Amino acid sequence: MAGSPRLAIVGATGAVGQEILKIITERNIKISDLILMADPSEAGKKIHFQGEEIIVRATTADAFNNSDIAFFAVSSEVSKEIMPLARENECLVIDNSQAFRMDENVPLIVPEVNPEDIKKHQGIIANPNCSTIIMAVAINPIHQAVGLKRVIVSTYQAVSGAGAAGLQELENSVAHFNNNKEFKPNIFQYPIAFNLIPQIDVFEDNGYSREEMKMVHETRKILHCPDLPIVATTVRVPVYRSHSEVINLDFEKEISVTEIRDLLTKAPGIVIQDDIQNSVYPMPLYTSNTDPVYVGRIRKDISSPNGIVLWAVADQIRKGAATNAVQIAEIVLNESLY
Amino acid sequence: MAGSPRLAIVGATGAVGQEILKIITERNIKISDLILMADPSEAGKKIHFQGEEIIVRATTADAFNNSDIAFFAVSSEVSKEIMPLARENECLVIDNSQAFRMDENVPLIVPEVNPEDIKKHQGIIANPNCSTIIMAVAINPIHQAVGLKRVIVSTYQAVSGAGAAGLQELENSVAHFNNNKEFKPNIFQYPIAFNLIPQIDVFEDNGYSREEMKMVHETRKILHCPDLPIVATTVRVPVYRSHSEVINLDFEKEISVTEIRDLLTKAPGIVIQDDIQNSVYPMPLYTSNTDPVYVGRIRKDISSPNGIVLWAVADQIRKGAATNAVQIAEIVLNESLY
Repeated sequence: MAGSPRLAIVGATGAVGQEILKIITERNIKISDLILMADPSEAGKKIHFQGEEIIVRATTADAFNNSDIAFFAVSSEVSKEIMPLARENECLVIDNSQAFRMDENVPLIVPEVNPEDIKKHQGIIANPNCSTIIMAVAINPIHQAVGLKRVIVSTYQAVSGAGAAGLQELENSVAHFNNNKEFKPNIFQYPIAFNLIPQIDVFEDNGYSREEMKMVHETRKILHCPDLPIVATTVRVPVYRSHSEVINLDFEKEISVTEIRDLLTKAPGIVIQDDIQNSVYPMPLYTSNTDPVYVGRIRKDISSPNGIVLWAVADQIRKGAATNAVQIAEIVLNESLY
Repeated sequence: MAGSPRLAIVGATGAVGQEILKIITERNIKISDLILMADPSEAGKKIHFQGEEIIVRATTADAFNNSDIAFFAVSSEVSKEIMPLARENECLVIDNSQAFRMDENVPLIVPEVNPEDIKKHQGIIANPNCSTIIMAVAINPIHQAVGLKRVIVSTYQAVSGAGAAGLQELENSVAHFNNNKEFKPNIFQYPIAFNLIPQIDVFEDNGYSREEMKMVHETRKILHCPDLPIVATTVRVPVYRSHSEVINLDFEKEISVTEIRDLLTKAPGIVIQDDIQNSVYPMPLYTSNTDPVYVGRIRKDISSPNGIVLWAVADQIRKGAATNAVQIAEIVLNESLY
């Protein structure tokens, strides 16, 4: 397709949609048109973009007919409902929801890990779960070198994983906590201020939350390791932005900390912050509003002969969602895959 | 020794010292005298105890000469310095610091796990690290049944692990965060409000923090498993009170979730909160100021044939320090081991 592409964003008023808009400008993506869509209740809102004012509209088939690529930053339910409108109009969709991630006809892409899978798309490319993206970026370079045997991850997930409403809820929860009033949560199951909630999303029959099982299934698909043993425990923490993860990795072969540092230093999308004698390690407060996956606390897992432990932190709205989606679009555009 | 014992508390004005005082009353420990000691700068303070006003004094040999059992709730440095005063006066010390924990002549006790080790004391009994106590209580009943093979733990540790000053620092850090002023931390390495700090205590040469290595060495000693593979990653979180831990356990033999529930239900010191369909699991906000170790999210570790994952939460000032120390004293008193 010749010329600059016409883009659309569905869910343009949400946390991820807003971030995609920022990143399109930051990364200087050339476009010929931009259509912003959202729930009908949001229609009519004005959004400033590169000196223009764009009026948000309700989602229509016609809008997709006039778009080459659409970012979906909406719930799974909405994504499934409107996907036919985009597909009937041959608009390529980069979908941030979980709706199509495990569909075998839908590539699930982390550009630093499996960009070649984009070529197999049939009109939908899925953007993985935020915690999954962060982990996949951090572990893939080592996996390529010495082969992963087992992955054990415990997460510390920010409230903005639940969108703008999650941010607001932490703020409200803190305000009520200080006033010693009882706080009735809306977004999370319990007050999140100065608390930890070991539940993200609903629970499945095997005792794992859906978020935990996303990390298992999606990581296997992205790494092309359908049987890789992975276990996750996902916990919501009172942090506004950036997810953190303790990742214990067992490998097929021994690998030294020095070799891992070398691999990760050369790997795309990773910044190493690991100088413990000077208390240098990644922290969510300092990694927010940036794109890299930050890795620190790299050390031998002293409980396993070929084990390594990492601490990975990244802004889950950017690299965990919006940046990853825009990176996918860049590859699609550069290689004319739409 | 006949009659009610004479007790002393060194560090009586600190977070743990204060909690020990409360617990002596709660558990109705009969005593004939109580001497409260602290740093000379705290001497002269008045502390109310069971209707009396006790004046805090500086630590002296004479005080130990008039005490049968002393709780030390001070730093390792202070503990080492004053220990000879207590020992020379044949006062049994229950020491909360790390100073003597790994000394082979000093029993390291979690009353639910290895109470019989108390008998071997030579005048000092060590109270383990808070995170270690919580984990040991949770994992020992299963270890006794099917034999631990590997322990992988990631912690979410409250600020009060750093004492009353830690509590104050979180409060200050939150206040400054809201005012958008730059906050200079005093107790922690970085601002802790809405942040995570993957460092507790100093780092050792192997890349682990001292807190992480305490969990390794102390757990092995308490369980009498000197070679048990254990790995820990300890993280400070913006929670006022109660530590939380994700614990992945590999066992020698298979064990079902039902069997684990049965074991933990019968085990001393544990309360199971595990009804995920109703969002029932332990959380620090609701477990603070109580004594049990709460266990939830019990499930098969899907990355390991004989693996189990747990989420354990407990008030680290109470069960992780003061309650455990008073429980040790109860055994000492009941069995006249002083």
